[in-house]
Amino acid sequence: MAETINRQILLVSRPEGEPSAANFKLVETPLPALREGQVLVRNHYLSLDPYMRGRMSEGKSYAEPQPLNQVMIGGTVGEVVDSRSEQFRPGDKVVGMGGWQEYAVVDAGQRGLLRKVDTTHVPLSAYLGAVGMPGVTAWYGLVRIIDPQAGQTIVVSSASGAVGGAVGQLAKARGCRAIGIAGGEEKCRYVQEELGFDACIDYKQHKDAAALAAALRAAAPDGIHGHFENVGGQVLDAVLSEIKPHGRIAVCGMISGYNGEPIPMKNPQLILTQRLKLQGFIVGEHMQDWPEALKELGSLVAAGKLKYRESVADGLAQAPEAFLGLLKGRNFGKQLVKLV
Amino acid sequence: MAETINRQILLVSRPEGEPSAANFKLVETPLPALREGQVLVRNHYLSLDPYMRGRMSEGKSYAEPQPLNQVMIGGTVGEVVDSRSEQFRPGDKVVGMGGWQEYAVVDAGQRGLLRKVDTTHVPLSAYLGAVGMPGVTAWYGLVRIIDPQAGQTIVVSSASGAVGGAVGQLAKARGCRAIGIAGGEEKCRYVQEELGFDACIDYKQHKDAAALAAALRAAAPDGIHGHFENVGGQVLDAVLSEIKPHGRIAVCGMISGYNGEPIPMKNPQLILTQRLKLQGFIVGEHMQDWPEALKELGSLVAAGKLKYRESVADGLAQAPEAFLGLLKGRNFGKQLVKLV
Repeated sequence: MAETINRQILLVSRPEGEPSAANFKLVETPLPALREGQVLVRNHYLSLDPYMRGRMSEGKSYAEPQPLNQVMIGGTVGEVVDSRSEQFRPGDKVVGMGGWQEYAVVDAGQRGLLRKVDTTHVPLSAYLGAVGMPGVTAWYGLVRIIDPQAGQTIVVSSASGAVGGAVGQLAKARGCRAIGIAGGEEKCRYVQEELGFDACIDYKQHKDAAALAAALRAAAPDGIHGHFENVGGQVLDAVLSEIKPHGRIAVCGMISGYNGEPIPMKNPQLILTQRLKLQGFIVGEHMQDWPEALKELGSLVAAGKLKYRESVADGLAQAPEAFLGLLKGRNFGKQLVKLV
Repeated sequence: MAETINRQILLVSRPEGEPSAANFKLVETPLPALREGQVLVRNHYLSLDPYMRGRMSEGKSYAEPQPLNQVMIGGTVGEVVDSRSEQFRPGDKVVGMGGWQEYAVVDAGQRGLLRKVDTTHVPLSAYLGAVGMPGVTAWYGLVRIIDPQAGQTIVVSSASGAVGGAVGQLAKARGCRAIGIAGGEEKCRYVQEELGFDACIDYKQHKDAAALAAALRAAAPDGIHGHFENVGGQVLDAVLSEIKPHGRIAVCGMISGYNGEPIPMKNPQLILTQRLKLQGFIVGEHMQDWPEALKELGSLVAAGKLKYRESVADGLAQAPEAFLGLLKGRNFGKQLVKLV
């Protein structure tokens, strides 16, 4: 193989407040020769996800910060183009953490880094979305924390997103009522009409937690049994005010205020008076549940029963702008960058 | 049996703000004749508990409000003095919900209302405390929600109270480090020296959540694995700031502010970033766990390994004042009223 140039995006500075394109830098690096046991993957799609914002800062979080002047981490799907491992052959379709770059050199022996996937019935890009980390995130929070029973009402915020959309459809598959919360008429229409939620509330139409609570009450007059939280703040306050006794809340995402200060929970007494369970999680800590989750998610996608939408940016150079747009909610569905 | 006069305390008005003695009224009522299946119990001790404050109001809570002009509800231990049931004989020692009165007429057939207890190794009054509802509350929150492992650090607020004291001792029995939070030097000394906690923090010495958090950090430099919350507010904020990843918080009590408004939780984002579980509970909803809990609690008390203290008011007429004192934290240990 002639020397190949790998284009990569590095994090070169940490944002103060809002991230900007200046925090990133596109560089070109020659690919090193493969060592024994290594695999060269051509990345086809890069996944952009909100968690990456957390990694850009040095604050206390559940994960190590992204090191400066190194390739931004990120999930990828692609194809093996060269291999010095018996586990992979050129042509294999794989999912992994290839990062913001066109090629990734991967140690094939390191468990969990690279996984072969079958694209007969499931499109390759879906392994970054409905049949990937966002799908498993939805599955884990819903199935393992909320534990929904047929007939119960389940609410999910960011319902038009990759995670939220899967939460509602998985809940529907279990005989529940699914109520979404999303921003804007177009997203709400998609959530109801395309994803099949029973209702979707446009939070932009409601000026505060009390107004949002009233909208939830109208959509779920008998109360909320379970909630999948992607947002926090006023949305969580509103859901808490409408939740039923023994309600379960899976906490998957929490925004902070404009200045980075945490947004308080208005009425934590409800945890006691309604005997609630609130549980935070990150799906990477529950690898033992991935096979079961991926099996259900793959079957549902193959059967056309788990729908999703993708926002696809074209080419690695577009990744920073696409990521900044994602943080502002400009994407619609799973945000990807097409690299091939 | 000659006509016996039963002295009773009724709730005659609902408090606006702080309850007062005027909300209660002592009345004398002739005891009715027993019907078939009924038992007459002479109450020896009445238990006073914070939950009664909630029942005095009509607000949204987990239980029905106490009806006006009826005998205040409350747990009691006593002795059967007359019986028209085959299940109980005069002389039987029993625990039940006899209410604020000297005698109780109980339908023996109604499941769970009256339970015979063995006073060979456990004093009768302990069935209202360490081997009763407070003990089982401690056991359930610690064992079923916090699920402590040997070597872990467990914090409990109101550590000198009937529930809190049992939480720490049950944690110690499981090989944990127990850290109490209590109000005042005398209570803290009791928690450490008599109950055997590893440390106790006097919250009155710390002006805000940050100062309390610093004291917790000094007592638990490696962080907190589990917390049993009897208080909420600043205490919960302080514990949250020192909790370890995957920490579990059993929510058993939550105060509100002076005007009855809820006190916000300052940083709910920690639920996500630390992947916490917060769970509220009331022990009456978990009757299936009582036998296991009571068995352990009874054995520990009989063996002298579960210590407790009682504040005993003398005579039914003292019950309202003792209850108001309890709400102000004037009691020291389990608050009882001796009726015989």
